[in-house]
Amino acid sequence: MNRLQLVSKSERHPSTVVQVGGCRIGEGITVIAGPCSVEDEEQILRTAHGVRRCGAAVLRGGAFKPRTSPYSFQGLGLKGLQLLRKAGDETGLPVITEVVDTRDVFLVCEYADILQIGARNMQNYALLQEVGRTDRPVFLKRGMNSTIEEWLNCAEYIMKECNSQVILCERGVRTFETYTRNTLDLSAVSVLKNLTHLPVFADPSHATGRPELILPMCLAAIMAGADGIMVEVHVDPARALCDAEQALSIEEFDILMEKINAAADFRRRLGWETLPVFGQR
Amino acid sequence: MNRLQLVSKSERHPSTVVQVGGCRIGEGITVIAGPCSVEDEEQILRTAHGVRRCGAAVLRGGAFKPRTSPYSFQGLGLKGLQLLRKAGDETGLPVITEVVDTRDVFLVCEYADILQIGARNMQNYALLQEVGRTDRPVFLKRGMNSTIEEWLNCAEYIMKECNSQVILCERGVRTFETYTRNTLDLSAVSVLKNLTHLPVFADPSHATGRPELILPMCLAAIMAGADGIMVEVHVDPARALCDAEQALSIEEFDILMEKINAAADFRRRLGWETLPVFGQR
Amino acid sequence: MNRLQLVSKSERHPSTVVQVGGCRIGEGITVIAGPCSVEDEEQILRTAHGVRRCGAAVLRGGAFKPRTSPYSFQGLGLKGLQLLRKAGDETGLPVITEVVDTRDVFLVCEYADILQIGARNMQNYALLQEVGRTDRPVFLKRGMNSTIEEWLNCAEYIMKECNSQVILCERGVRTFETYTRNTLDLSAVSVLKNLTHLPVFADPSHATGRPELILPMCLAAIMAGADGIMVEVHVDPARALCDAEQALSIEEFDILMEKINAAADFRRRLGWETLPVFGQR
Amino acid sequence: MNRLQLVSKSERHPSTVVQVGGCRIGEGITVIAGPCSVEDEEQILRTAHGVRRCGAAVLRGGAFKPRTSPYSFQGLGLKGLQLLRKAGDETGLPVITEVVDTRDVFLVCEYADILQIGARNMQNYALLQEVGRTDRPVFLKRGMNSTIEEWLNCAEYIMKECNSQVILCERGVRTFETYTRNTLDLSAVSVLKNLTHLPVFADPSHATGRPELILPMCLAAIMAGADGIMVEVHVDPARALCDAEQALSIEEFDILMEKINAAADFRRRLGWETLPVFGQR
Repeated sequence: MNRLQLVSKSERHPSTVVQVGGCRIGEGITVIAGPCSVEDEEQILRTAHGVRRCGAAVLRGGAFKPRTSPYSFQGLGLKGLQLLRKAGDETGLPVITEVVDTRDVFLVCEYADILQIGARNMQNYALLQEVGRTDRPVFLKRGMNSTIEEWLNCAEYIMKECNSQVILCERGVRTFETYTRNTLDLSAVSVLKNLTHLPVFADPSHATGRPELILPMCLAAIMAGADGIMVEVHVDPARALCDAEQALSIEEFDILMEKINAAADFRRRLGWETLPVFGQR
Repeated sequence: MNRLQLVSKSERHPSTVVQVGGCRIGEGITVIAGPCSVEDEEQILRTAHGVRRCGAAVLRGGAFKPRTSPYSFQGLGLKGLQLLRKAGDETGLPVITEVVDTRDVFLVCEYADILQIGARNMQNYALLQEVGRTDRPVFLKRGMNSTIEEWLNCAEYIMKECNSQVILCERGVRTFETYTRNTLDLSAVSVLKNLTHLPVFADPSHATGRPELILPMCLAAIMAGADGIMVEVHVDPARALCDAEQALSIEEFDILMEKINAAADFRRRLGWETLPVFGQR
Repeated sequence: MNRLQLVSKSERHPSTVVQVGGCRIGEGITVIAGPCSVEDEEQILRTAHGVRRCGAAVLRGGAFKPRTSPYSFQGLGLKGLQLLRKAGDETGLPVITEVVDTRDVFLVCEYADILQIGARNMQNYALLQEVGRTDRPVFLKRGMNSTIEEWLNCAEYIMKECNSQVILCERGVRTFETYTRNTLDLSAVSVLKNLTHLPVFADPSHATGRPELILPMCLAAIMAGADGIMVEVHVDPARALCDAEQALSIEEFDILMEKINAAADFRRRLGWETLPVFGQR
Repeated sequence: MNRLQLVSKSERHPSTVVQVGGCRIGEGITVIAGPCSVEDEEQILRTAHGVRRCGAAVLRGGAFKPRTSPYSFQGLGLKGLQLLRKAGDETGLPVITEVVDTRDVFLVCEYADILQIGARNMQNYALLQEVGRTDRPVFLKRGMNSTIEEWLNCAEYIMKECNSQVILCERGVRTFETYTRNTLDLSAVSVLKNLTHLPVFADPSHATGRPELILPMCLAAIMAGADGIMVEVHVDPARALCDAEQALSIEEFDILMEKINAAADFRRRLGWETLPVFGQR
């Protein structure tokens, strides 16, 4: 891997902390939770209050939804941004939402604290450059068939435009396996902790597409070195307009947070950051 | 596959012909040739005259190049569009070039006869919608890890905006095989000829990344039912600024065209269009 | 690729012809046809006479069937071998069948003219060594996720035991695409024609799992350089005990042979063997 | 998934414990350690004493090595079995080794306590049936491109022959990613803990091919629900005859065991077995 000048870890630059509101991403475990998409005021407000109560640090919610079919629900757009902002303001949670068009970047910046680049747009270089010119942290999901090297190059595209607040998120790669929606590549999390100073997240909701796998995959991601988790939570999963099958209820999220906190605590006591790196002989 | 209302083949709509200048894409075999990127005036003009002499119907040349690393040559931008247009005008060839940003679509329309959506942007839905609002034909490459169903949905995104001139191009999918750059999926070409009325191309240059495979893969693609071929040709392959390893010289392209024409002629005599469809019992 | 001493093509050893009965595999196009499995005497005899009449050169039929579930039909075993031999003797066709156990190799040699190694056993090195010690030609299918290099090494395993009659068969690789059963990698056929002197076949029945794709994929495989085609044919496809969905009827196979012969004739006139190899500069 | 009668988890049969010597596989975390291949008496004895001292429960060591090239070291065969047995007897550790040929199964049973089926032979059904007829536990590795469903069917093949002592081991699947040797699929571990009563292991050595990833992947596997870990350890990694790049030294393994034990302890306190299963609504 050549010429990854800005994203690479070094002794002088071992780790980056991204500060958003009172939340310091890259220190301990940060949990980002919320619905796949903002659907209406009641849904986002109730979900926001719910996840906040359980301990989420950031609220997610899609306003512009990239969907496989042009006939599927495409998100509420501007209205979705406004409702998400309102939910963030009411709860005091910073909010993150996806941006999918270079022309929307500055609009989304008005409403969101963190800009998300989705898996399908990971190599949309025009979009990467545009978010690189903002002062907002960028949450960069891995493309479904992107190598670690390609992914780091995409982070480099953003940082080259002088935005150094980049967060990486593993969300599953496409394989032949059909039991899970994608295959969560937790070794990529550990690899990235060795290669880059940027915070690394895992998103087991999108990776697995199965609620019963989210808890064990969150625990495993923490042991792999993840700095945070992104998880889909909905106040009423059965009625979610997208990804209904994998969203957790508030009650489930409450249990999840308890276990995540226990795992984070265990990892701290284990001294994960200072574990020896094998094979250096 | 549900709800592919516009792209689906039917008895009433068995095939689409896209007319560009004097060229009718979807009738016989159309060859699109030219360099990976426009590099300077001499390079594009000499290549354009070369491929025209050999029988290419459309000239390709990149002005906005999506590259894995932000430090690689990114194309000449507007200057590249102008040079490509000049080469098209001098030779009488329609020109095709990639557009990578919604904000550039109308600028690119001023210079190009056909708009290309590259593999990395296949699911950039904002861009698909924007090119769907122009009067230019759209050449939609398959994403490296996209299923046929996802690809057809992307064509549906474009057609839903009322642009019915869409051309599909298979350019290889990502697999575990490392000998070839990607794996050219010629069965997808045959599948598409059954499912959609849109013209289908194959691009063996990008799929294989190896010049020695381009000739046999062109012949195979024609037998699989392709309506056309896109191939990289450079007046001086050894000095190409990108994809130098796979570009054909004018002399090689001349031989390629001769064999493509022979195969097209054979396919016509074979009555490919009216071959029986097995398995309908 | 190191140390492929025996399989590699060279000026002194450009191509191998495997002689089986009156059939010379590696000269022109050889078609191997027959049912997935031998089911009963009437089925195999009627299919054998049918495919012979249409011009098949070798009869296939499984006696030992590797099936995903232990509760699926596993083949007739010895009885299947005997019936296949009888069908070969009645029609004068050489017969090929799969061997799956080192202990069965010499038994199968008593009944079969060619030994098939299936995709699941491509890297069963004990089995490769055992068939390498026989005097029977070996038909080596590519593993579903095997690279070209691994595949050639498996041929090398056989040849190292002093059996130089090896035939390679591309039968599709596993990818994310679900529309076809596997993805037929025709570029691998062209690659192998450059790398090895051994004959190379394609099997579109197993690769695609769809009868409507078999005809175009046979034509494409021939243009990619294949020395032969393996195809599933059943006297009554609807009642086949395995792979019923993809088997061709005798009537369909008759049409297929006519088109294969036309393509073989076209390829000969094109001088495929002496086409220039691009990129050697 | 139909007809998985024997491997499926049920209320009446929630989990299987495989007893080998004093070791109860399926209770807590069992660690299997040792070299890729038995090389000579000193190497295997010193490694065996080393891993035993650190807390390994089972000793691994290959005698029959399936290698990509026929010219690579193929293992010591019978001599390797004898040395492994001696090392097991000296240390009191049960031993596991791979069997690759149906004809060797009863020979290997004389020397080994557990029979390993390697990834390349996962669908070698003749071999599965043969080990199913022994009284030895079978350690069944996942094929590099095998789905969970295919894998469970292979366990069913073994159990159908009346051997109910089967252990499953995830060892990485083949993807497009080249940074790691394969991609360790830890979600498969969690899936299997839901679907089957059989013990499930993970092998991060083969999956990642990188020593620096083994420690985090062991911790992650434990959180995903693994019943055990298989890891390559060599008394002198730099001089290992195969897989030298990924073997741990005894000193590294000692640290690894300490962290594995801490994670096992944490998991027990967390009550992993009784964690709620989300999504059952």
